[in-house]
Amino acid sequence: MALKARVLYDFHSENQGEISITENELVTLFSEEELEGWLEGENSRGEAGLFPASYVEIIRDHITTNTNNNGCSSPKTKALSPTQSQRGLGASSGGSSFNTSQGSDEDWDDDWDDSSPATGAPQGLGSTPPLYPVTTSLPGRRGSAQQYQQQAKSSATVGRNLNRFSTFVKSGGEAFLLGEASAFVKDGDRICVVMGKHGPEWQEDPYPFTCTIDDPTKQTKFKGMKSYMSYGLTPTHTNVQVNRRYKHFDWLYARLVERFPVISVPHLPEKQATGRFEEDFISKRRKGLIWWMNHMTSHPVLARCDVFQHFLTCGADEKAWKQGKRKAERDELVGANFFLTISTPAVPLDLQEVESKIEGFKTFTKRMDENTVVVNTTINEFARKQIAGFKKEYQKVGQSFKLLAQAFELDQQAYSVGLNKAIAYTGEAYEAIGEYFAEQPRHDLDPISDLLDLYRGHLSNFPDIIHVQKGALTKVKDCSKQESELHERCNIISCATLAEIQHFHRTRVRDFRSQMQHHLRQQIGFFQKITAKLEDALQRYDDDH
Amino acid sequence: MALKARVLYDFHSENQGEISITENELVTLFSEEELEGWLEGENSRGEAGLFPASYVEIIRDHITTNTNNNGCSSPKTKALSPTQSQRGLGASSGGSSFNTSQGSDEDWDDDWDDSSPATGAPQGLGSTPPLYPVTTSLPGRRGSAQQYQQQAKSSATVGRNLNRFSTFVKSGGEAFLLGEASAFVKDGDRICVVMGKHGPEWQEDPYPFTCTIDDPTKQTKFKGMKSYMSYGLTPTHTNVQVNRRYKHFDWLYARLVERFPVISVPHLPEKQATGRFEEDFISKRRKGLIWWMNHMTSHPVLARCDVFQHFLTCGADEKAWKQGKRKAERDELVGANFFLTISTPAVPLDLQEVESKIEGFKTFTKRMDENTVVVNTTINEFARKQIAGFKKEYQKVGQSFKLLAQAFELDQQAYSVGLNKAIAYTGEAYEAIGEYFAEQPRHDLDPISDLLDLYRGHLSNFPDIIHVQKGALTKVKDCSKQESELHERCNIISCATLAEIQHFHRTRVRDFRSQMQHHLRQQIGFFQKITAKLEDALQRYDDDH
Repeated sequence: MALKARVLYDFHSENQGEISITENELVTLFSEEELEGWLEGENSRGEAGLFPASYVEIIRDHITTNTNNNGCSSPKTKALSPTQSQRGLGASSGGSSFNTSQGSDEDWDDDWDDSSPATGAPQGLGSTPPLYPVTTSLPGRRGSAQQYQQQAKSSATVGRNLNRFSTFVKSGGEAFLLGEASAFVKDGDRICVVMGKHGPEWQEDPYPFTCTIDDPTKQTKFKGMKSYMSYGLTPTHTNVQVNRRYKHFDWLYARLVERFPVISVPHLPEKQATGRFEEDFISKRRKGLIWWMNHMTSHPVLARCDVFQHFLTCGADEKAWKQGKRKAERDELVGANFFLTISTPAVPLDLQEVESKIEGFKTFTKRMDENTVVVNTTINEFARKQIAGFKKEYQKVGQSFKLLAQAFELDQQAYSVGLNKAIAYTGEAYEAIGEYFAEQPRHDLDPISDLLDLYRGHLSNFPDIIHVQKGALTKVKDCSKQESELHERCNIISCATLAEIQHFHRTRVRDFRSQMQHHLRQQIGFFQKITAKLEDALQRYDDDH
Repeated sequence: MALKARVLYDFHSENQGEISITENELVTLFSEEELEGWLEGENSRGEAGLFPASYVEIIRDHITTNTNNNGCSSPKTKALSPTQSQRGLGASSGGSSFNTSQGSDEDWDDDWDDSSPATGAPQGLGSTPPLYPVTTSLPGRRGSAQQYQQQAKSSATVGRNLNRFSTFVKSGGEAFLLGEASAFVKDGDRICVVMGKHGPEWQEDPYPFTCTIDDPTKQTKFKGMKSYMSYGLTPTHTNVQVNRRYKHFDWLYARLVERFPVISVPHLPEKQATGRFEEDFISKRRKGLIWWMNHMTSHPVLARCDVFQHFLTCGADEKAWKQGKRKAERDELVGANFFLTISTPAVPLDLQEVESKIEGFKTFTKRMDENTVVVNTTINEFARKQIAGFKKEYQKVGQSFKLLAQAFELDQQAYSVGLNKAIAYTGEAYEAIGEYFAEQPRHDLDPISDLLDLYRGHLSNFPDIIHVQKGALTKVKDCSKQESELHERCNIISCATLAEIQHFHRTRVRDFRSQMQHHLRQQIGFFQKITAKLEDALQRYDDDH
C-alpha cells in the first residue's frame, strides 16, 4: 500500500517541480524521505511533484509524524535538517545561511525581478502554516547540515524540542538557551537592555537620526537595455545621498530578519501595490518605504546595526559596497548568537511577572490585529464612498442648482441677474465640494490605512517573537533542576522580548497619536475649505454682486 | 344601438353614485343629457353611475361633441352649463357661484373633515383633465343657469368661444372682453396697475404687513365630542391674534381663486403631508401655512382684499364672522367683474410687446417647472442620503475608532492612556458628526423643498392665467374691425397679467435669494459645527489631556 499523507495547510505551487495541495486532501508519497524540507508525491488531481514536508502529516497506523513534544524529559536529539530556514536560522557558526535573497556577489547586478515572490518575510499570525524552504538552489545553500550536527551535541540536562518547525528552534532561541551559541562579541556589537520606568527597554540611540527618501528616478544600464528605479536616500547623520533599489531594501530586510530573532523588523511595502486609486505604483511604494524607513531609524537596535548603516552610508564605490555586503552575509551574530550580544539590567526579571506581561501582550496583539482589520476595512470603504457616492451627491446637487440658474436666466430682468449668477456659482461650489470629497481620502484616510498596514506587519511578527520567549520559559519551568545559567539565558531572552514589546508600544503610541492628529488636522482643513467655498458662494447673493 | 362615448381622461369615483372610468375606455350612455355637468352611463366593468361629461366624447357618426372652435366668425351662442366651475366661474351677476367650499352658514360649524378631497384648487398644468363639478348638492348651487342665459345675449361683433372648458371662458375673461361684465365698483375696491421700471406692476400696498402663525393648539367642542386644531394668527397691522382652522384657510382659498382670475393664489399645503421624516404632520402643515401666509401678505392685491382682511382680523364674535363670510360669498366683483376693478396706466400697452413678453414667460415657467422638479428630486435624494448613508458612514468610522481605542486600552501603561481616551473621543466625535448629517437636511434642504413646492403651485396656476390673456389677445387679433373698447379691455387684462407676472418674478427673486442664503448659512454653520467637533477631538491628543 502506497504511503499516504494528509494535507494540513493549503500550498500553492509557485515554482516548477512543485505541486499545489489543499487542506485535508490525501496525497500519495513517493518516498518518506524529505529532501531539504520537501517531500515528493502525487496529489489527488494526479499531479506529481514537490510540496513542503511540514504541510502534511504522514498517515501511519493512525500515528502521525507531525507531533508536538516540548517536554524537557525527552533527551532525544536529532540533526536539524536545513528546512528550518527563514527567520534568522543561521544559528551558531559563520557562513551563509539558507536564504534566497542573498545570492552571490555575481548575482547582485542582475536585474532582479522585483515582483518575484517575497523572500525572507516571516508570514502571518499563529494560525498560518509553517514556513518552508524555497526549492531553487543557489550557491552556498548547502553544507550547513554539519553545523546542525555540531549543535546537536546538546547538554544532557535539557532536551531538544522535537517540533522541527517551532519558532523557538528556528530562531536559535533553543540553541542559545541550551548554551550552544558561541561567538566573539565586540564591544561595538553589544546591545543594552536597560531598566526603564515601564520595564526593560532598549537603550536609546545616543545619536538618533532620520532618513529621507526622494522620489525614485529611472536609471538604465547595459546601454539602456535594462532599466530600474532608484531611490535617493539621505540619512541626517551623514547628510550624503545614496541610491538604492528596491532589491537592496529586500536584501537588507532578509539580513535583519536573520540577524534579530526577537525584534520586529518592519515589513517592506508590498511588491505589488494595487492601490484603490490606481495611483502610481512607484509613489505608493515610496510612501511605504518612507514609513518603513521611519520605523527602522526609530528602532534603537535596528538603526545602529552594521548592515543597515552600510546600506545607508555606502556610496557609489562598488568595491566598498560588495565588501560590506559580504561582511553582512558572513555575520556570525545572527540567530542564537544575537542573544550573546545582549546586556541585561543587573537585577534579573521575575519570570512570573514576565509571563504575565507576555500573556497580556499576546491578548493585546490579538485584539489589535482584529480591530485594525475592522478599522482598515471601514476607512477604505469610507474612502471609496467619498470618492464615489459623496462626490456624486454633491455634484448632483450642484448640477441641479445650475439647472435652476439656467431656468432663471430665461428671465433677463435686471433684478434677476445677480441671483441667477449667484445660484449658478453655488452650483459650481457644490461641484467643487464634490471634488474636495473625492480628493480628501488620500490626504487623511490613506495615511491611516498605510499605518495600519505597517502595524499589521508588526503584529504578524510578534507571535514568533512571543514563541521564542515562551519556548525559553517553558523549557526553564519544565526542568526540575534549577540551572542558574539556563535562568540567566532565559532572562536575556525575556529582557530582549520585553524591550521589544516596550519599543512597539512606544512607537505605536507615537505613530497613532501623530497619525490621528494628522487625520484630524486634515479633516478640519477639509471642512474649513468647504466652509470657505460656501462663504464665497454666500457673498454672491449680496446685492452689490 | 346604445349611445357610446370614449373616455378622454381617467376619472376615479370619489362619491356615491359616481363610477370610475379609464382613458380610452368605451362607456354606454343612458342619456345624452347632462345633469349639472355629469352624464349617466355604464362603464366597461358593468358599473352604472355618474361621471363628468367633460371627461368623455360622445361617438356619433365619427363626429365628436368635444370640438375646439375659437374663431370669432362663429356667432353661435349657447347657454353655458354650470360645468365650468371652480376658477372664478361666477361670471357677471351676483349670488353664490358654484363651489363646494362655500356651503351654507349652517354647515359652517360642522366639523369639516380636513382630509376630504381638496376643493376649489385649480389643478395641474395644461395637460390635466378639465375640472368638473362635484356631485353633492348644496343649497344655492342651482339657479345659475339663468345667469348664463343672460350672458348669452352677446354682442354680435365678437363671437363666443365654443370650447366650454376654455379657461378664457371659465375665468370670465371672455365675458369681460365682450363687455358683458357690469358691477358697481367702489373706490375701495379699485386695484391699480402702475407702470414701473420693468413694466406694469401692482401698485404697492402703502401699509404692508406680515402675519405670524403659532403652533396649532388642540380645541374641543360639543363637550369634548369633537376636536380640531386651531392656528393662532397675529397680523402685524392689528397685532391681535385670531384663531383659524385649516377649513377656514380652505374656504378663504376658494373665495380668492373665484375672485381673482389672473392672480396666482398660492396653493395651501397638502391636506395629507407624508413627510420624509415622519415628522409631525401638524408641524409640517404649519410650515406650509407660514409660506402660504408669507405669499399672501406680500401680494399687493391679495393682501388688502376684503375677504382676506376679514379672515385675518375678525375676532371670536361669531355673528361678525358670519356676516363677513356671507358678504364674501355674495361678492359681485368675482371673475369677469374683477377686471372692472382694475385701473391701468394712462398709456396702453403695445400688444405685440405684451405677446412677446407673455410668450417669454410661458417658456420661462415651463423651464422653471421642469428644472425645479429636478432640483426637488435631487435635494430630496441628497437629504435621504445624508440621513441614511452619510450618517452610517461617519458612524461606522466612529465605531471603528472606538474599537481601536478598546484594543489599545488593553495596554494600560501610563503613556498610552491619553491616546486611548483621545481615540475613543474621536470615535464619539465621528458618531456625533454622523448625527449632524442626519439632522441637517431638515434645516437647509427641507426649506428649499418647501419653497419649490410652493412655486410649483404657482407654476401650475400660470398656464390658466396666460390662457386668459392669450384668449383676449387672440379674440382682439381675430377681429378685423378695430373696436377701441375691445382693445381697452384687452389692455386691462394684459396689464393685470403682466403685473402679476412682474409680482411673481419679484417674489421669486426675493424668495430664492433669501432661501439660498438661508441654505448656505445653515450649511456653513453645519460645517463649522463639524470643524469645532473635530478641533475638540484634536485637542484630546495634546499631552496634557
